[in-house]
Amino acid sequence: MNLEGFFNPQSVAIVGASRQKGKVGYEILANMLEAGYRGKIFPVNPKADEIEGLECYKDIESLPETPDLVVIIIPAKFVAGVMKQCAKVKAKSVIIITAGFREVGKDGMTLENEVIRIARQAGIRVIGPNCLGVIVPGNKLNASFGGDLPASGGIAYLSQSGALLAAILDTANANGIGFSTLVSIGNKADVDELDIIEAVAEDGDTKVIAGYLESITDGNTFVREAERISYIKPILLMKSGGTEAGAVAASSHTGSLAGSEVAYESAFERSGIIRCNSIKQQFDYAQAFANQPLPAGARVAVITNAGGPGIMAADAIEREGLTFAKLNEGTIQKLAEKMPAAANLLNPIDVLGDALADRYEYALDVVIDDNNVDAVLVLLTPQAMTESAKTAEAIVRITRQKPTKPVFACFLGAAKVREGVDILRQGNVPLYDSPESAVDTIEAMVHYVQWRSRPRRVVKLFGVNRRKVENIVERHLRQGILDIGEAESKDILEAYGFVTPKGAIATTADQAANIAQQLGYPVVLKIWSPDILHKSDVGGVKVGISSEQEVRDAFDLMMYRIPRKKPDAHILGVLVQEMCRKGKEVILGMHRDPHFGPLMMFGMGGIMVEVLKDVSFYLAPLTAQEAKQMLISTKTYKILQGVRGDEGVDIERIAEGLQRLSQLVTEFPQIKEMDINPYVVGSPGTTPIAVDARISLEK
Amino acid sequence: MNLEGFFNPQSVAIVGASRQKGKVGYEILANMLEAGYRGKIFPVNPKADEIEGLECYKDIESLPETPDLVVIIIPAKFVAGVMKQCAKVKAKSVIIITAGFREVGKDGMTLENEVIRIARQAGIRVIGPNCLGVIVPGNKLNASFGGDLPASGGIAYLSQSGALLAAILDTANANGIGFSTLVSIGNKADVDELDIIEAVAEDGDTKVIAGYLESITDGNTFVREAERISYIKPILLMKSGGTEAGAVAASSHTGSLAGSEVAYESAFERSGIIRCNSIKQQFDYAQAFANQPLPAGARVAVITNAGGPGIMAADAIEREGLTFAKLNEGTIQKLAEKMPAAANLLNPIDVLGDALADRYEYALDVVIDDNNVDAVLVLLTPQAMTESAKTAEAIVRITRQKPTKPVFACFLGAAKVREGVDILRQGNVPLYDSPESAVDTIEAMVHYVQWRSRPRRVVKLFGVNRRKVENIVERHLRQGILDIGEAESKDILEAYGFVTPKGAIATTADQAANIAQQLGYPVVLKIWSPDILHKSDVGGVKVGISSEQEVRDAFDLMMYRIPRKKPDAHILGVLVQEMCRKGKEVILGMHRDPHFGPLMMFGMGGIMVEVLKDVSFYLAPLTAQEAKQMLISTKTYKILQGVRGDEGVDIERIAEGLQRLSQLVTEFPQIKEMDINPYVVGSPGTTPIAVDARISLEK
Repeated sequence: MNLEGFFNPQSVAIVGASRQKGKVGYEILANMLEAGYRGKIFPVNPKADEIEGLECYKDIESLPETPDLVVIIIPAKFVAGVMKQCAKVKAKSVIIITAGFREVGKDGMTLENEVIRIARQAGIRVIGPNCLGVIVPGNKLNASFGGDLPASGGIAYLSQSGALLAAILDTANANGIGFSTLVSIGNKADVDELDIIEAVAEDGDTKVIAGYLESITDGNTFVREAERISYIKPILLMKSGGTEAGAVAASSHTGSLAGSEVAYESAFERSGIIRCNSIKQQFDYAQAFANQPLPAGARVAVITNAGGPGIMAADAIEREGLTFAKLNEGTIQKLAEKMPAAANLLNPIDVLGDALADRYEYALDVVIDDNNVDAVLVLLTPQAMTESAKTAEAIVRITRQKPTKPVFACFLGAAKVREGVDILRQGNVPLYDSPESAVDTIEAMVHYVQWRSRPRRVVKLFGVNRRKVENIVERHLRQGILDIGEAESKDILEAYGFVTPKGAIATTADQAANIAQQLGYPVVLKIWSPDILHKSDVGGVKVGISSEQEVRDAFDLMMYRIPRKKPDAHILGVLVQEMCRKGKEVILGMHRDPHFGPLMMFGMGGIMVEVLKDVSFYLAPLTAQEAKQMLISTKTYKILQGVRGDEGVDIERIAEGLQRLSQLVTEFPQIKEMDINPYVVGSPGTTPIAVDARISLEK
Repeated sequence: MNLEGFFNPQSVAIVGASRQKGKVGYEILANMLEAGYRGKIFPVNPKADEIEGLECYKDIESLPETPDLVVIIIPAKFVAGVMKQCAKVKAKSVIIITAGFREVGKDGMTLENEVIRIARQAGIRVIGPNCLGVIVPGNKLNASFGGDLPASGGIAYLSQSGALLAAILDTANANGIGFSTLVSIGNKADVDELDIIEAVAEDGDTKVIAGYLESITDGNTFVREAERISYIKPILLMKSGGTEAGAVAASSHTGSLAGSEVAYESAFERSGIIRCNSIKQQFDYAQAFANQPLPAGARVAVITNAGGPGIMAADAIEREGLTFAKLNEGTIQKLAEKMPAAANLLNPIDVLGDALADRYEYALDVVIDDNNVDAVLVLLTPQAMTESAKTAEAIVRITRQKPTKPVFACFLGAAKVREGVDILRQGNVPLYDSPESAVDTIEAMVHYVQWRSRPRRVVKLFGVNRRKVENIVERHLRQGILDIGEAESKDILEAYGFVTPKGAIATTADQAANIAQQLGYPVVLKIWSPDILHKSDVGGVKVGISSEQEVRDAFDLMMYRIPRKKPDAHILGVLVQEMCRKGKEVILGMHRDPHFGPLMMFGMGGIMVEVLKDVSFYLAPLTAQEAKQMLISTKTYKILQGVRGDEGVDIERIAEGLQRLSQLVTEFPQIKEMDINPYVVGSPGTTPIAVDARISLEK
């Protein structure tokens, strides 16, 4: 989407500009001026003639020209009036800083809706209300009261919390971190997180997109678009309100429904979004993604002037699942040529406590060329001889000469390394306050590279009998029946290629015995009544029946007992069904998330799901690879493969079941929840059986 | 141990003092002078008359008096000579800064041993070699080249990495963090980590003990003493070299054997040591433990001026397993009296973006009195009206007026909150750079409080037949046999109160049939030969035998086949054994860790241990509670309790088995490794059976 009017306006009107220091209406004007904005600024305030030397206008209509961007600061109840004026003069981009809308309750919501209605009618895009504004350092634009204009840089930042953005800006300014764009999205009544992400994705100055979100407006579109954009630029998000306590706080704060954690995790994984747990972690990642090339692999070399931090880095590399690079013989020989005898030339390369900048430079220069090395971490502790500044210069020099592999620095200490730290920052070498956070960042980059190089997603479409399911679903919805009974649930499954157990309804004991004989023992008997949902509760299920006599006994007992327990139930007979063949029980399921749509579930059946909660989730529609990954993600996957001489089960067929289910729930948004439990799978080559299913609809 | 000579010397000799700036011999002298040391300083250097205005002596023997502390900086090969002089003048405390000892290899090791031999003979205590020295701010002592003298404070710090200590000192000095003592322990040839911990535990100025270690000298003593000291003062340790890659780096660095990670985890848990994963985390914890009271419980209240960070704190509280405090009605009413209408009075308490210091002060004052609140976290973001300094003053004031509950602060931002941050630091209110790290610290304190209030450890001693085990073990060791066979393994188990399956040796098929009949079917047959260790491999085990005919067949087949497979084996007959009663299989085991001694293991048997690696470890000797905790720590504990109508097993009896095993391996240090697998346990009230055991000895 084109948000040029917000990011690169040639003229800005400030409605509610004020002369009074400390007032938002003054601060924004002052920020605009201080930033050195090169376009025209029109303060709008009926009570003033000029502010800070700029001519002041009484309203939007009195302006000499239509401003590209209008920033509104006046109280909420007057905003609709200003929006009407904007419509009249054909302004196209409006930031509403003013609070007191949706976030304060029903009256505010009404005001907000009215303002947005006017804007939409006139084709005006709106950022806010209840936000801090927009900052674009490259255009010297600071249309915000968030703080001073930061340096230009490769990070675009959007935040649903204005206060957090202000804190981030303050911290970034203190550390010289640069941005391409900062946007406070506030109540996101019109422009939302995805609009911003799409806009900065197109922006040449933006290398990485970062943000803080409490909710996502349109989950489905977000996932699709974020996936596309993640291939081009990494997206780093903090998403709060994930846990139960957090979600309560979130809904009291933004009035928006906080999404379920599992669905968010799945959505982020699908779309390649890198989730961050703290501001610190987010900026640790952002500075690396913004300034360094991506690593080709996971092999990390460490150069250090002290053993302790080297060990800490090695520990972290192992913990994070990265690889401790094994240097080439040639590299070790080259190092040996100029390193002192006591230096450790294996990884971590210990250049020793008396290393000057030249020894660091030589080591980095040699190690970065090693084709067994994908990333280099340079650690420095301030010791007696250490040249922090010169070493930093050397690192920057090498990264410029050899810009194909990422280099990370960790200079421990404070005053003694300050000069070096500043040089690294200016030289765009990402800097960490501990070996652990540097390694954590490398891991995030490696993970991103792996995500980006995964095969193209291809969702297989199976030949199915869609019409049949349509009929069943529509009839149920027409009749207001939301739970589909066992018989029709099986019809639905069969229409989508699942195999269900054979069986038939018997109305007499003789019939039951006949059916059983045709099926072959053992069989199951189940009471058959539209009025009995929980058959087991009324003694309506009998498994493991292995003789004619048992069939007759079970039939007669059900027919005698159940009408006494449920006198109102209309009993149609007893279902005689084949017992499932030997195999393992798993569960295939789906829960429709309010934000992201169908969320598929796979779980080991029986005791595993109960004791270990051993399940995995992923968003539909599933590719074959994703379906299989769902199996692999469970802790007990090995049991499916077969352990202790036990033959494994047909894993491909389970994955196929998940894909078929995924197709069903994608094609029928009326299905709210369903699971196939148990889904009995046997050894490779056999056909799994969907023994039982539960399907719930919603209108 | 008394280390007063190191921490509070009245006179210090510096052997190797130098006039040349940049040299360690100069830096230490300069540091001593700059720190304002009040005792006497004797530079020792045969080539100088005076350094920095101090008279210089040619050697230790020429000094006018015996110095309390001698600091040695001269090259390694001369150190033994100086040590001899120290012995002569009866000096008692020596710091060897010099490197080039054990850490450089065999020759260095020889030098080091020689130096320590001389010292031990003369009753001299030595810190180092290869260290930075000792700093005691309260005594204005900076006998180190680590950096400037830091402020006085409640943190004692010891480090096995000198470079890391220097970095920590630099960082601490930049942030005004105070210490009671800092010790660089270097190669710890004499004084080790435990000596330092014991000394600072007695020191009134030390509130919390922190350190960085790569190895522990004497694991057993360390655990015992650290447990005692942890009750009095919290111990916060970084321990690196834990992972495999880290351990390789560790041994090339210090030449010390890195301990197994599991044993360290267990040792730290037993002794209440709080393990830290980074320097940052360690100082996050240390400043809280040093300056705040301990929380009585886990209920956290959050006060904030912005929604976003409040949600982030709420998320973290839930993630860390803490409790989001539910405020009393009275508290909410009191808050309502002075808070604006829009403020959220539930936890997190949102005092709103325009809150001045007074609103923060009122809220904190009210919330801290709530008896549903154990700890308070105050969050601040720099917004237009925010008074960072005054708010900080208010927080400090309240914590002084009401010093019984811990208060934590997180002021987000940098320049805009700097003044407030400084005030909080000076006011001893611990300060965090994110809500997450504040909550993480609260969790560490809550965990420590729980550890400290656990019941007294009482290890039960069972009545056993120790003599019998002694005989077996000693005979094996005498004969050089390190693996104990099945029969005698069972004798050992029975001597310690385990029940093993009944059975007897048969030499004919008739005998076998007779024994089987007496035991009752089903039975197991096992070939009986001292020369066959892996019976299954030669077809020497047949389970599930349920008739006389099967007994005879199995017996004859073994007698026919096995001598053909193992012609040299001396076959004594066939063991006919009862099949184990119905029950669940678990594993009880022990592995003797080189540092910490017997490490007990509990695991679910069969598929669980193979697929899930579902085992837990703990150091022997076990209390009843610890044994039970080992069961509870496994992921599949619920299976032992019984799920899905399945009756649970006798959990107390498993715990008893672990305790008996713990007693056995504690009383017999000759047992290197053993496990009872399977240990079959039935429903409560039944007796578990130790079906099979493997015991290995070491000399």
